[in-house]
Amino acid sequence: MSGLTIALAQVNPCVGDIAGNAALVRARSREAAEAGARVVVFPEMVITGYPIEDLALRESFQRAAEQAVRSLADDLVADGLGDLTVVLGTLGANADGHPTNDAVIMQNGAITARYSKHHLPNYGVFDERRIFAPGTAPCVITVDGRRIGVVICEDIWQDGGPVAAMADANIDLLLVLNGSPFEEGKGRVRTDLARRRAAEVDAPLAYVNMWGGQDDLVFDGHSFIVAADGEWMANSPGFADALLLWELPAAGAAPAQSSVIDFASDDEQVYSAVVTGLRDYLVKNGFGSVVLGVSGGIDSALTAAIAADAVGGANVVGVAMPSEYSSQHSLDDAADLAKRIGADYRVQPIASLVAAFQSQLALTGVAEENLQARVRGVILMAISNREGHMVIAPGNKSELATGYATIYDAGSIGGFAPLKDLDKTRVWDLARWRNARARNLGEVEPIPANSIEKPPSAELRPGQMDQDSLPPYELLDEVLDAYVEHAEGRAELLARGFDEAVVDKVLSLVDRAEWKRRQYPPGPKVTALAFGRDRRLPITSRWREKVE
Amino acid sequence: MSGLTIALAQVNPCVGDIAGNAALVRARSREAAEAGARVVVFPEMVITGYPIEDLALRESFQRAAEQAVRSLADDLVADGLGDLTVVLGTLGANADGHPTNDAVIMQNGAITARYSKHHLPNYGVFDERRIFAPGTAPCVITVDGRRIGVVICEDIWQDGGPVAAMADANIDLLLVLNGSPFEEGKGRVRTDLARRRAAEVDAPLAYVNMWGGQDDLVFDGHSFIVAADGEWMANSPGFADALLLWELPAAGAAPAQSSVIDFASDDEQVYSAVVTGLRDYLVKNGFGSVVLGVSGGIDSALTAAIAADAVGGANVVGVAMPSEYSSQHSLDDAADLAKRIGADYRVQPIASLVAAFQSQLALTGVAEENLQARVRGVILMAISNREGHMVIAPGNKSELATGYATIYDAGSIGGFAPLKDLDKTRVWDLARWRNARARNLGEVEPIPANSIEKPPSAELRPGQMDQDSLPPYELLDEVLDAYVEHAEGRAELLARGFDEAVVDKVLSLVDRAEWKRRQYPPGPKVTALAFGRDRRLPITSRWREKVE
Repeated sequence: MSGLTIALAQVNPCVGDIAGNAALVRARSREAAEAGARVVVFPEMVITGYPIEDLALRESFQRAAEQAVRSLADDLVADGLGDLTVVLGTLGANADGHPTNDAVIMQNGAITARYSKHHLPNYGVFDERRIFAPGTAPCVITVDGRRIGVVICEDIWQDGGPVAAMADANIDLLLVLNGSPFEEGKGRVRTDLARRRAAEVDAPLAYVNMWGGQDDLVFDGHSFIVAADGEWMANSPGFADALLLWELPAAGAAPAQSSVIDFASDDEQVYSAVVTGLRDYLVKNGFGSVVLGVSGGIDSALTAAIAADAVGGANVVGVAMPSEYSSQHSLDDAADLAKRIGADYRVQPIASLVAAFQSQLALTGVAEENLQARVRGVILMAISNREGHMVIAPGNKSELATGYATIYDAGSIGGFAPLKDLDKTRVWDLARWRNARARNLGEVEPIPANSIEKPPSAELRPGQMDQDSLPPYELLDEVLDAYVEHAEGRAELLARGFDEAVVDKVLSLVDRAEWKRRQYPPGPKVTALAFGRDRRLPITSRWREKVE
Repeated sequence: MSGLTIALAQVNPCVGDIAGNAALVRARSREAAEAGARVVVFPEMVITGYPIEDLALRESFQRAAEQAVRSLADDLVADGLGDLTVVLGTLGANADGHPTNDAVIMQNGAITARYSKHHLPNYGVFDERRIFAPGTAPCVITVDGRRIGVVICEDIWQDGGPVAAMADANIDLLLVLNGSPFEEGKGRVRTDLARRRAAEVDAPLAYVNMWGGQDDLVFDGHSFIVAADGEWMANSPGFADALLLWELPAAGAAPAQSSVIDFASDDEQVYSAVVTGLRDYLVKNGFGSVVLGVSGGIDSALTAAIAADAVGGANVVGVAMPSEYSSQHSLDDAADLAKRIGADYRVQPIASLVAAFQSQLALTGVAEENLQARVRGVILMAISNREGHMVIAPGNKSELATGYATIYDAGSIGGFAPLKDLDKTRVWDLARWRNARARNLGEVEPIPANSIEKPPSAELRPGQMDQDSLPPYELLDEVLDAYVEHAEGRAELLARGFDEAVVDKVLSLVDRAEWKRRQYPPGPKVTALAFGRDRRLPITSRWREKVE
């Protein structure tokens, strides 16, 4: 008995693009066969894209997915690939007609096996018990005399179930199809888990994950293979197409490493996730360019740099919209940024527009500040309407969490908010990381040093500084992380030694900002627990930590 | 053995207001005892409010809820109510510390029994499997020698489980604690179901439901009691506080009706739901007044009338914002509306504001139309900032579904959108119903007849009419209902005889409007399947019905 070459096809499907996704499977199957693979494995739900949410409940969608799978089996035979075993994820249905999250195995034009995911995640960003019925049977297929188990994503995250059932099934390989969203640090968690499961079934484990952006989720790829003893056999890079080949050795023979790549740093992974999230939101929705307000500050500078990395600087329109309170250095820094990234730079002063409103409304104080901010929002939406660029919002997580933002301003309007799940200190870190990468590559640093170094200000009144209204960002972000991400209460925060006044300030801001958060466009989820989808909190709530 | 008087306390708790909700239970318990009740029953999760979503996962919140329940038991004794059996819903925890959805039974200062909901709904607006662990034990308590079963909401909607377990438990009464959101026509479904369950346990069934608005959900109350043979014993009105008293007869004696009230018409129920949703969104979030744009059209007229019914006409600010394309009849109708409902009426022409933008931007076509619409949004937000009124959005479901709206305009900005789940034909129906009610009561009709009768127009260019861009609303709403609410596909719609061009027009509009819908403020859910929470669809999706 000789070795069996398997291929993990790390691809980027699009939700709802059933024909396009099937074509992707067909093309990659050919590549895999040409590279000598006997088995090619695609990610969870590759035919429909993932997550499809309530599209799963639509009968016409169910039928379209099933027809695509049947046609694909025929097409593979027509391509001379009947002999290749293709394992892919798609939408199925159980005997009662309830949707299931399936793996389908195609061999010689037939669907020779079908597996329905047992463990349906229903926490964090996942809602699978809402739409899918769980499977109950395990799945072991045979290729060239080798026994191969097939499971899907959450099945390896829960003890028991189909993996435990395979411990005594004498399998030679375990395939895991995944739609596993990126979270910072998740790569290590996944690989530790995979090693445990490989030991449990006493066989190598091949983990194939999709990559790409889908609304506020980003899938990172990072497919890999570990041996039964946990040894690292092969892996794919993150955030890129990849076809990972590895040979399952003949029975009794020792496995050999094929491709092994180091994980990128956390900053690089997060940056890649944000670029991927924005690029796919644009591409998958048919946009080729973006427009944003550039203030000379760090948030818009990093957002513009990310946009330039996503779709090219020539497809970024940066609009400086100075008011009477804007400083010259702000305009200079905005112009410098645009030049560095090759953006289309424009200046639209707002003074006469604000004056027109003021002649009718005579606003003062915060109302006047917000008016300036919203006039900028109108300008961006107008340019978007006229020229077809999508507006992107540079608001960051710290200001979203605390409500330190004007709703419907240039920081919050638009289709996508790349920094939505990055706190302010992380924004600075990523800006420094991006510039350092440019230096290392001998390229122009995209972000002006001034934008990184100067104290942040909304410049909506003379001499206004963020730190007049908020605790220092380093402290603020630490309290936010504990209160929002880790659900620590006031008592726990005080016990940890945070200053009571700071804690009460931050908690009261967060408790009142829920409505603003709901009005933000989606942004890529990059931390373990982000706003957006992970937390579901009532907008109307009188719960305050002090109640206790 | 004599009869046992029970009281169903139909109350309106607020999510997170643990102290306030406990005080409500205390006050109502006293009233119930004074009225002769031996048992008083409160709705599901009355102590915490419902739904609390991920607040359930916060330990400090769990502790606060539990402390409130313990204190309440003491307070009831201090009030001389120790002898009263109090049944209420609250947040609990199972042996593993996972949150549970509990009923607590208090007698003589002790918690004498505790029940955890078995069936956790996880469809439509419900996410309970995300946060709660299911219970496993049934609950039967004894009061004055009578055996009383206790279950919670979804427990009666599913066959099997605790109700089936009580079929042989020889109970004298089944209490059902509910947090059951309003849906049009749901009253009849609930009562049919309750009759079946009463027969199943061969005992009267007492159904107590909360009422009030919580973000985009509205609870309607409509508490009731049916006898074992299904006979209607007593019921409470919808959308109001109520304490329903009924005597469980001595064993062998025939039950007697107490209070029996007819259901209101569907239009009245929907209107009440929308008023309740808006009022509670305002009150529970600390707002006392609203501001909205009044165009002279039907949407803003009905929205203003609803606001006047919710918080009083004197707390409604209507702002007419005529452009060069606005007709005199629009201004006249807006002024007439304001006069009829007693609103604060203002006029803010937008011509000079639009001109200021145009001198910089020189927009044409749709970009120019949208500019006008967004300048109005800025004016409303400015007035809101200056005076503290919450902005409400008059956009309706038909325009939301089709994307026939300017995002960030006066129809879509703000904190709450009362008409969000009402299609356009329903908007007209409710306007006519509201005026008819006024006529019947000898009051001034709130909505000008002109606003109801004239063909709808956005008046963003000369002679513009909705029907130039959309199919007739009666037809549009019928297709929307089939496609959106009932998930029918293109093939089914054509088979039903709808015109192919109309179907394709509507489907393509809806398929592209998802992003706009996500940007709308919450509005009360009034139909079986509404936008907002019931459907979860990807924003980025290339699924089109024609793919099939």
